[in-house]
Amino acid sequence: MAVVGIGPGDAGSITPWASDVLAGAEVVFGYRTYLGLVGHLLAGKEVVPSGMREEVARAREAVARAAAGARVAVVSGGDPGVYGMAAPVLEAAAAAEVPATVVPGVTAATAAAALLGAPLGHDFAVVSLSDLLTPWSVIEKRLRAAVEADFVLVLYNPASSRRQDKWRRALVVIREGRPPETPVGIVWDAGREGERKVVCNLATAAEFPVDMRALVIIGNSQTYVANGAMITPRGYRW
Amino acid sequence: MAVVGIGPGDAGSITPWASDVLAGAEVVFGYRTYLGLVGHLLAGKEVVPSGMREEVARAREAVARAAAGARVAVVSGGDPGVYGMAAPVLEAAAAAEVPATVVPGVTAATAAAALLGAPLGHDFAVVSLSDLLTPWSVIEKRLRAAVEADFVLVLYNPASSRRQDKWRRALVVIREGRPPETPVGIVWDAGREGERKVVCNLATAAEFPVDMRALVIIGNSQTYVANGAMITPRGYRW
Repeated sequence: MAVVGIGPGDAGSITPWASDVLAGAEVVFGYRTYLGLVGHLLAGKEVVPSGMREEVARAREAVARAAAGARVAVVSGGDPGVYGMAAPVLEAAAAAEVPATVVPGVTAATAAAALLGAPLGHDFAVVSLSDLLTPWSVIEKRLRAAVEADFVLVLYNPASSRRQDKWRRALVVIREGRPPETPVGIVWDAGREGERKVVCNLATAAEFPVDMRALVIIGNSQTYVANGAMITPRGYRW
Repeated sequence: MAVVGIGPGDAGSITPWASDVLAGAEVVFGYRTYLGLVGHLLAGKEVVPSGMREEVARAREAVARAAAGARVAVVSGGDPGVYGMAAPVLEAAAAAEVPATVVPGVTAATAAAALLGAPLGHDFAVVSLSDLLTPWSVIEKRLRAAVEADFVLVLYNPASSRRQDKWRRALVVIREGRPPETPVGIVWDAGREGERKVVCNLATAAEFPVDMRALVIIGNSQTYVANGAMITPRGYRW
């Protein structure tokens, strides 16, 4: 079985390897949203859609089908290893001793970064603001550590309908250690219908409504904006 | 002009978007190694190869050619935004007011992670151990911060012929904050000829020879190894 990253969503960003594995699969699992993005590759296959928060059950079901002899693919948006289905599927596969392959994809952080310019040109930290499975104290500690060590910061899952406050709380924490003029890029629906972006700064970022479809990149001390592009040089001019 | 990420190197991991942009280019710049990986896409084009450490000069030359009217592509391994050519090209393009697009690719961190299993299933920090442009004190501070905040760690450029000591020094710093049994994955030449990997731990990692072609992933407190795969669950079981 394989866990397949389809990239941000546009047909031009799914790799030939991922397309080939999907073409060869008999049963395809995935969130409805991601299955819709690759609908043109799924004709004639058994498709098993699921909603959010069903990752573990879906992973086990997919492994059970693979153990029973089906060629199974589990679709994941972006790269399956980054907050995607790779971990839950490999956990279930290891428990059942079923071999599983991970097919990497273009991850949301680099797809969004490309739209903004080159904000990830130097060391960066990737943090999810979702506190469903991680205590907020751990998340806040990571934000402080990343700010203090001058990492560029990539924020996944900045807010949801249930969590409207975390994005603003994260900004407060980050502003304690980084000046208000620090560039901030926000990308909504990278590589999908409705894609849009804004380059603002730490003083103004809270004005923009973020949700699960947004990805936020906060510059380090060297990041600047030129010709509309957010650029982090590859080192320090020391 | 465009900066084009070709992914780790195998033909199955270059996106259709990247292939199309290369196909439409008249002049293609890049390191010899990366140009060699996409040689089958470059027939009939003007190809401008360069060696390491010529990034700024190459970026300016590419921008000058674009400003003079040529359709220019600059090839970068993995994703061009992650320690690649996106930042130097966008810097030169902004200075010359030449429009430039970044075409994202599968970045080395996720390609290596996929080979190892799912080590990036939770928050992670990406650090280059190259101190050519960054003081070692900054690098060491970032390693300490990442360890202290329990980030999974991805190490790029762990060593070179000039820097044999930094890898061992980094391991010493990391071992101060993380137990010796912490899983460590090392991948050499992900997606290329000679690809190989090892899953070891912090106590044994120094035994393995790393170089510029290696990428190292160090687990957080939750990372474990099952059926040979390195897995970081998507949160904490609290």
